[in-house]
Amino acid sequence: MASDSPYRIVGIAGSLRRGSFNRALLRTAQELALERLNIQIHEIGDVPLYNQDIEDQTVPQAVDSLRQAVREADGLLIATPEYNHGVPGVLKNAIDWLSRPPRGSALNGKPAALMGASPGMTGTARCQSQLRQSFVFTNTPAMLQPEVLVSRAHEKFDANGRLTDEPTRKFLGQFLDHFAAWIPRFR
Amino acid sequence: MASDSPYRIVGIAGSLRRGSFNRALLRTAQELALERLNIQIHEIGDVPLYNQDIEDQTVPQAVDSLRQAVREADGLLIATPEYNHGVPGVLKNAIDWLSRPPRGSALNGKPAALMGASPGMTGTARCQSQLRQSFVFTNTPAMLQPEVLVSRAHEKFDANGRLTDEPTRKFLGQFLDHFAAWIPRFR
Amino acid sequence: MASDSPYRIVGIAGSLRRGSFNRALLRTAQELALERLNIQIHEIGDVPLYNQDIEDQTVPQAVDSLRQAVREADGLLIATPEYNHGVPGVLKNAIDWLSRPPRGSALNGKPAALMGASPGMTGTARCQSQLRQSFVFTNTPAMLQPEVLVSRAHEKFDANGRLTDEPTRKFLGQFLDHFAAWIPRFR
Amino acid sequence: MASDSPYRIVGIAGSLRRGSFNRALLRTAQELALERLNIQIHEIGDVPLYNQDIEDQTVPQAVDSLRQAVREADGLLIATPEYNHGVPGVLKNAIDWLSRPPRGSALNGKPAALMGASPGMTGTARCQSQLRQSFVFTNTPAMLQPEVLVSRAHEKFDANGRLTDEPTRKFLGQFLDHFAAWIPRFR
Repeated sequence: MASDSPYRIVGIAGSLRRGSFNRALLRTAQELALERLNIQIHEIGDVPLYNQDIEDQTVPQAVDSLRQAVREADGLLIATPEYNHGVPGVLKNAIDWLSRPPRGSALNGKPAALMGASPGMTGTARCQSQLRQSFVFTNTPAMLQPEVLVSRAHEKFDANGRLTDEPTRKFLGQFLDHFAAWIPRFR
Repeated sequence: MASDSPYRIVGIAGSLRRGSFNRALLRTAQELALERLNIQIHEIGDVPLYNQDIEDQTVPQAVDSLRQAVREADGLLIATPEYNHGVPGVLKNAIDWLSRPPRGSALNGKPAALMGASPGMTGTARCQSQLRQSFVFTNTPAMLQPEVLVSRAHEKFDANGRLTDEPTRKFLGQFLDHFAAWIPRFR
Repeated sequence: MASDSPYRIVGIAGSLRRGSFNRALLRTAQELALERLNIQIHEIGDVPLYNQDIEDQTVPQAVDSLRQAVREADGLLIATPEYNHGVPGVLKNAIDWLSRPPRGSALNGKPAALMGASPGMTGTARCQSQLRQSFVFTNTPAMLQPEVLVSRAHEKFDANGRLTDEPTRKFLGQFLDHFAAWIPRFR
Repeated sequence: MASDSPYRIVGIAGSLRRGSFNRALLRTAQELALERLNIQIHEIGDVPLYNQDIEDQTVPQAVDSLRQAVREADGLLIATPEYNHGVPGVLKNAIDWLSRPPRGSALNGKPAALMGASPGMTGTARCQSQLRQSFVFTNTPAMLQPEVLVSRAHEKFDANGRLTDEPTRKFLGQFLDHFAAWIPRFR
């Protein structure tokens, strides 16, 4: 990589909802980080439910595509809501596929960063803790600080999914700066 | 309910694999608890990925059937592996659907018990901790003790999925006795 | 217990700071629950660091007193800050002493409820998750819903430690009602 | 640092018990890593219970000494039991002191590695998850893989606290190799 080209980042939203605050957060990150991080959003709505019997026969197309995207990327950026004090099943299912095979998965050694937005006050705090726990097993170094927890998201995005809250935009920019500095540690 | 008829229990396995140790564990529980607990295993492999946009239009058939089964049951028994130090996405996805709508879900107030089997040593300890965290939000009282964590599962089931390890069978029986005593607390 | 006498509750604050928001929250609970719950605050600042070598010789006076208070109570009410995304060591240390001996501890079967106040937005969410995890092992049934997470505590208490935020006072009252209904389930 | 001198590591045991398996594990690590890691064990039994009122007046001597040791070290190695499915209060209390002041603590940016030994089967899995959660807040990059979870510890150490189980010794050696490679990433 030339020293002045941006890192290639796969962005994954933990919600399939079209109007998801978290996909909107990823889009804001795309916009803010343009020169340092080239963020491509990869959808996970076509990934089937994980089943080892299926995996043993053939890897589904949507899984193969997801694995390849992560493998070729310099880093992984996840923006996710919290469902039931935990990681959305939809997102965890994608991670379960990504984590295979155990020793040589696309997640192994891949630098990552986590963000979350929710209408409530806790801003996905518990979900992010659980996600980090999975990334211990997959050996995926997730950046520690700063942490992006967007609470009361419905007040911070406009009807078009644009993040209008200036303090949050500024903080997100700093977060992305730190991510750009986190990635080369794991070369 | 007549005092001598068994409680109706929905059993859910967290793995879709045909030869799953956890489905085998549920079958052993069926056999051991026959007089106190009538355990019906409900499969979750047809439940689609959770998407609020879909839910807002129509509830998928597999979800409707799952919700109704849990709603009509006296309790919920989950047997699950641990994927990536966490809850399998497959299982969490089913719980995400079950948790809706927020105030009046099928999980609200439903007594539950958790079991887990895995080839490793930790026997799904971390997965069960995460699952309990979700059950706080859904207001699902999960029995605390004893905890069933079947480690080195491949040594304790035979090729037909029969649990042959006698100490584990005995402990499972005690666990089910406790579950039968846990359920009426939440009437 | 006569049906109209209040339950005896031991209240424990997870912070030793004199001006602790969490001790102030306990005092508000004392005031609001007077007719249903008789809450006695028990301080834990004299409990020494847990050391099994010490325990094997003699149980320190402060530990003995704490154990007896919890043993004689009908329930346990904890109000705690979050330190470093977790349970304050001070509080966990008290619980470690209380959890002994393993089978017959004062925490075994004791109904509990958790509250938390913090200056930040997440309102001790992660700390409460960890605390519940310990209460699985000690077989301490902690009420699930509602959850009291007082965020931005510095705006909700006055200089005298009085909880002045009316919505929070009202919610706390409902929480205590639920706790009073939770306790008799574990008789 | 000259390229061939070992990293200076502070080792902390999460148990105060004289015959602690975890202190014995630290001693084994000292022995095995001699050329790459110079591990100095720092005791935490004199650290008082954390109280911000005390901290605002004067930092206790034992805390000052601990902070200085960690600050001067190249890395932190923790070996800890699991108490009540969580971090021992004793250890968490030391971390609570170490985490202060918030922005410029001795833990900020300090590479760490976690180990655990316990008589049970889960080998401190839940404790390590909680500890990692605190290290997110303190910005302490804890190595992800491999994970040292010594189960059935009483069968793997002899009466003198010597780790006699050869597979565990070998695995510990590999773990320490990885730690030595983890440290320079955070320069």
